[in-house]
Amino acid sequence: MIKAGIVGGTGYTGVELLRLLAQHPEVEPVAITSRKEAGMPVADMFPSLRGRVELAFSTPDEAPLKSCDVVFFATPNGVAMQQTRELLDAGVKVIDLAADFRIQDVAEWSRWYGMEHACPDLVAEAVYGLPEINREAIRKARLVANPGCYPTAVQLGFLPLVEAGVVDTSWLVADCKSGVSGAGRKAETHILYAEASDSFRAYAVPGHRHWPEIRQGLGRMAGRDVGLTFVPHLTPMIRGIHATLYARLTQEVDLQALYEARYADEYFVDVLPAKAHPETRSVRSVNLCRMAVHRPQGGDTVVVLSVIDNLVKGASGQAVQNMNLMFGLDEQMGLTQIAVSP
Amino acid sequence: MIKAGIVGGTGYTGVELLRLLAQHPEVEPVAITSRKEAGMPVADMFPSLRGRVELAFSTPDEAPLKSCDVVFFATPNGVAMQQTRELLDAGVKVIDLAADFRIQDVAEWSRWYGMEHACPDLVAEAVYGLPEINREAIRKARLVANPGCYPTAVQLGFLPLVEAGVVDTSWLVADCKSGVSGAGRKAETHILYAEASDSFRAYAVPGHRHWPEIRQGLGRMAGRDVGLTFVPHLTPMIRGIHATLYARLTQEVDLQALYEARYADEYFVDVLPAKAHPETRSVRSVNLCRMAVHRPQGGDTVVVLSVIDNLVKGASGQAVQNMNLMFGLDEQMGLTQIAVSP
Amino acid sequence: MIKAGIVGGTGYTGVELLRLLAQHPEVEPVAITSRKEAGMPVADMFPSLRGRVELAFSTPDEAPLKSCDVVFFATPNGVAMQQTRELLDAGVKVIDLAADFRIQDVAEWSRWYGMEHACPDLVAEAVYGLPEINREAIRKARLVANPGCYPTAVQLGFLPLVEAGVVDTSWLVADCKSGVSGAGRKAETHILYAEASDSFRAYAVPGHRHWPEIRQGLGRMAGRDVGLTFVPHLTPMIRGIHATLYARLTQEVDLQALYEARYADEYFVDVLPAKAHPETRSVRSVNLCRMAVHRPQGGDTVVVLSVIDNLVKGASGQAVQNMNLMFGLDEQMGLTQIAVSP
Amino acid sequence: MIKAGIVGGTGYTGVELLRLLAQHPEVEPVAITSRKEAGMPVADMFPSLRGRVELAFSTPDEAPLKSCDVVFFATPNGVAMQQTRELLDAGVKVIDLAADFRIQDVAEWSRWYGMEHACPDLVAEAVYGLPEINREAIRKARLVANPGCYPTAVQLGFLPLVEAGVVDTSWLVADCKSGVSGAGRKAETHILYAEASDSFRAYAVPGHRHWPEIRQGLGRMAGRDVGLTFVPHLTPMIRGIHATLYARLTQEVDLQALYEARYADEYFVDVLPAKAHPETRSVRSVNLCRMAVHRPQGGDTVVVLSVIDNLVKGASGQAVQNMNLMFGLDEQMGLTQIAVSP
Repeated sequence: MIKAGIVGGTGYTGVELLRLLAQHPEVEPVAITSRKEAGMPVADMFPSLRGRVELAFSTPDEAPLKSCDVVFFATPNGVAMQQTRELLDAGVKVIDLAADFRIQDVAEWSRWYGMEHACPDLVAEAVYGLPEINREAIRKARLVANPGCYPTAVQLGFLPLVEAGVVDTSWLVADCKSGVSGAGRKAETHILYAEASDSFRAYAVPGHRHWPEIRQGLGRMAGRDVGLTFVPHLTPMIRGIHATLYARLTQEVDLQALYEARYADEYFVDVLPAKAHPETRSVRSVNLCRMAVHRPQGGDTVVVLSVIDNLVKGASGQAVQNMNLMFGLDEQMGLTQIAVSP
Repeated sequence: MIKAGIVGGTGYTGVELLRLLAQHPEVEPVAITSRKEAGMPVADMFPSLRGRVELAFSTPDEAPLKSCDVVFFATPNGVAMQQTRELLDAGVKVIDLAADFRIQDVAEWSRWYGMEHACPDLVAEAVYGLPEINREAIRKARLVANPGCYPTAVQLGFLPLVEAGVVDTSWLVADCKSGVSGAGRKAETHILYAEASDSFRAYAVPGHRHWPEIRQGLGRMAGRDVGLTFVPHLTPMIRGIHATLYARLTQEVDLQALYEARYADEYFVDVLPAKAHPETRSVRSVNLCRMAVHRPQGGDTVVVLSVIDNLVKGASGQAVQNMNLMFGLDEQMGLTQIAVSP
Repeated sequence: MIKAGIVGGTGYTGVELLRLLAQHPEVEPVAITSRKEAGMPVADMFPSLRGRVELAFSTPDEAPLKSCDVVFFATPNGVAMQQTRELLDAGVKVIDLAADFRIQDVAEWSRWYGMEHACPDLVAEAVYGLPEINREAIRKARLVANPGCYPTAVQLGFLPLVEAGVVDTSWLVADCKSGVSGAGRKAETHILYAEASDSFRAYAVPGHRHWPEIRQGLGRMAGRDVGLTFVPHLTPMIRGIHATLYARLTQEVDLQALYEARYADEYFVDVLPAKAHPETRSVRSVNLCRMAVHRPQGGDTVVVLSVIDNLVKGASGQAVQNMNLMFGLDEQMGLTQIAVSP
Repeated sequence: MIKAGIVGGTGYTGVELLRLLAQHPEVEPVAITSRKEAGMPVADMFPSLRGRVELAFSTPDEAPLKSCDVVFFATPNGVAMQQTRELLDAGVKVIDLAADFRIQDVAEWSRWYGMEHACPDLVAEAVYGLPEINREAIRKARLVANPGCYPTAVQLGFLPLVEAGVVDTSWLVADCKSGVSGAGRKAETHILYAEASDSFRAYAVPGHRHWPEIRQGLGRMAGRDVGLTFVPHLTPMIRGIHATLYARLTQEVDLQALYEARYADEYFVDVLPAKAHPETRSVRSVNLCRMAVHRPQGGDTVVVLSVIDNLVKGASGQAVQNMNLMFGLDEQMGLTQIAVSP
């Protein structure tokens, strides 16, 4: 059994990791830390885990993290970079669900995240954990930077187009909608039920931290810088991201065939038939990206619809997928549930 | 492998049954019928099943129901009673998720359901499928009447009090709240999103079909007729039932100890600690009834809070639990997922 | 024009008061205070008021409260009692939307609210602002204690029964469901969208502060202490309270006639026809209590369904209704909008 | 008093019209038709109108439509074109909230709406009822084609850019999100609460009937055909449209100044300060379009966020605004409520 630790387990990615790891046949969660809640059984905070997860929160100092096989950071940005080296030195593999190791350009990272990076050398070593692009590198990695939720949905949606070089990458548009759990389990007014329900709005249009992450990913696929406009929106639902992607075709191509071929061997990406519209609930609670590709009125604009559960394929499920790869397990292990719908 | 058929699979209990059966290690779903949708792959109607359930709907005539080991009826009331005898005669076990076999008093049944019963003798044979009360009879049954959603939450909540004889059973109150999926997947105006969202209301206060079913169950526990007021409400959520139960104590009793003792060996009932308040999302997608018992201000009124997922412990999950019992399998098999929360 | 001040205007009752007062033909809002937000235009915090309310928040010290004709306290409990005497002495009428003056038994108040009362003599003077019961006293009052949201729905619902003496007042049950705005605009985890959406739960079953307030009101109507069990629940909707009330009849009575007669002259109470089920959205945004009375299966239990908008008839609308009475205006002035539905 | 009739009043635009007209100081609603519900008081179907609207539905034949001053069609597409001529001939002004008179190219209209047009000459006469563009023509019109909901939000959002000629009109993107009331009050499965809640999806990406309407409007502003990609989405909220608009700047321009200047005199358009993000709830229940204009990272892409209440500025409110203009009333009359928020 793989011994797994979770640092910072009081948020939604933490409880979702526990849900998945507790049902994984080859993993035993052995530690979950929260300085603030130390001593409290996890199931007291998250009653959905009652009877299934016996762990209690412990302080980071007391938790047996160095004797784990893998440690997941489900922490705010800036925490993992302080603790990762010590864990790696102890032979522990690390998967960071926050953003500390996602951006290779450390100066760029500092601009967007507002702090100095504690370990630029580890950024250089870290592997970006999007298996559909980086599978082999992930298998060999000690340190994986788990992608952001929006970046997962957007990169997987644009990937076939950009890899095939059939769109103008100087003007890509990603109009994204997220459920409110994407904002985390923080006591903030703007995500109260009475504020976020029955309403819809964009946010961070002047600039969102996932913009440089997506640009980096698309730039790698394209082999050059891309022009990207990214607008995130808050939607009154709990889970789910819907990315609506726009690009201009530069040559004729059978879009449906292109998408089906690219993802033919990807268990966690499902290309819908032509003319379909994926709904976020069809991936609720599962590690799956569903997408459809359109060309409205036969014009030169391609529209891709890409949906994920932000807490699963957009966070904790993808982290488990990465863990499976890092430990040589079947990539699908523990990730084959069926979506809960309705 | 147990070969399972589903009659009437286009509603929410049908798709939920498929979700559970497709993940059950000892069951193979081999047929699902819908006269109207015959030929359509199930996953076209329910995209959450794409890639996991390959069945297509077939007409009842074409479906190999008689060669199944078990057939589930997820049909409107009045259908199962027409087809059950033929299946039983062919050696097939039957679990009816509708109401055809729930009420032993056939005249009473006719009054509430507005039709003649087709097979009163089978009503007499049918076992009421609430395992926490009827486990041994279910093990031996050919025909199980799967309980209604409200009746499950209410009966399990009142059970320890009534069995112990510590409340006045002449005036019991069950104030129940259901998510909208409880109304089924029918094209009706009053359950449209724009009608049912952001609003709350009671319905069927003059009389609801689950009232005689609950009264029958409580009456059996009490050994005499009970007085019951039952008021159902529609709540703007998808899944979940919350039953708030009121009764007047007739003697001193340690309520917490009574409840914990009664359900100590029941895997699918979870008694919360004193002063707790179960929330419906803590049982979302799982076969579990969570409850808490209160005695406000130390008065003579006991308040029980009982929650289930109406589609799982209130319907399809309980049906699988009954199937496990009927086939001598581990009662928990295929029903050990962790609730999806948030 | 009546000059109105609002103390503590950053919560939902504050913004709702502004919405109503800004549309009132005889009122001019002249001050709204918030120590924390002093200087910020109210419309920056509440964009729904842009272009319609030009006020900015001011500190309590700077605000011209003593030159107002009326001051509304939309503050946390314990604030109004500190400032009311000074305002009354300056000839200002005071309406407290919090609980400082609701409970006549000051010792009882202290037990439930956990603080010493600053001015018991003013409690004695204060008039409980439920116009359907206290209209004449309100007209003459300097100081009105605006009722709580649950107490409004519950007292209006029980009123005809208790006044007529036709039910056993020793065992009344009030099962109440509130939208999330009832919890206020506070940055607390349990009322986040991702926590409170798509779920339902009871809270405060061991004891809620509105229990003594309701008991006091029902006791006055009955002329003696009443036995009351009160269970509040949190419902995934923004606005609205649905009270489901249970009592045992002690004599025969035409319930429909009783209710229609009692409220025949009350503009803000609407008794629905027999067999109806009011929905909370039918009173969304308006100062109205809609109710229906039932006697299921002709038994001895009466069930009353009573709905209000917790922010209007349950708070700010009722405060304006009280203000109208206190200033000799038409009671309906500024309160005749039509509910927004769907 | 203006005598107003409504044809087809059982949908959401019908009840919303009644809400607005019943509060309008110069209008008396005298007839509302529904063949199916003839005889039923409107308030029985829409309890929010109880005590405020005394009308009952009548058949189209019995209703005194020809003696009205104005008749609103809140019908499915294809009805108004059958009845308009007779009303116009009788001297009645007509406002069609459906699509019969919106598209000047009758052949194009037939392609999208799947029927022959009954009166192309009246299409030619009809004025497109977007007052911010067509105010003077509306004042003189007998027949107004009230714009669609998406077209209102999109055209108002793009208007300053296109009029000023500062963007490349060959590639405009309108990514739009609508609340579920936009789908109407029809008993259809896909808009059930349990289907549409807690999920998000696009629809009609291959082609939506509002696409030619928007293209026509933008084409008129631009003086030439425009290239437009329009993707509508269904959002789990009742009311509201959020249009996120993308265009490429072809010259330098002070966007904030451009928008503020264009709408300086428009009471029903509110340009937010720079960097703002309008939320749909800020216009809930009111006749207002709020918008903000952005230029992310100072690039060449302009992003406009435009929100309306689909039932008010997107339908019934705009119809009343048009009526005010047609009858020489103050344009704002009856439309000055404050948004209901939260």
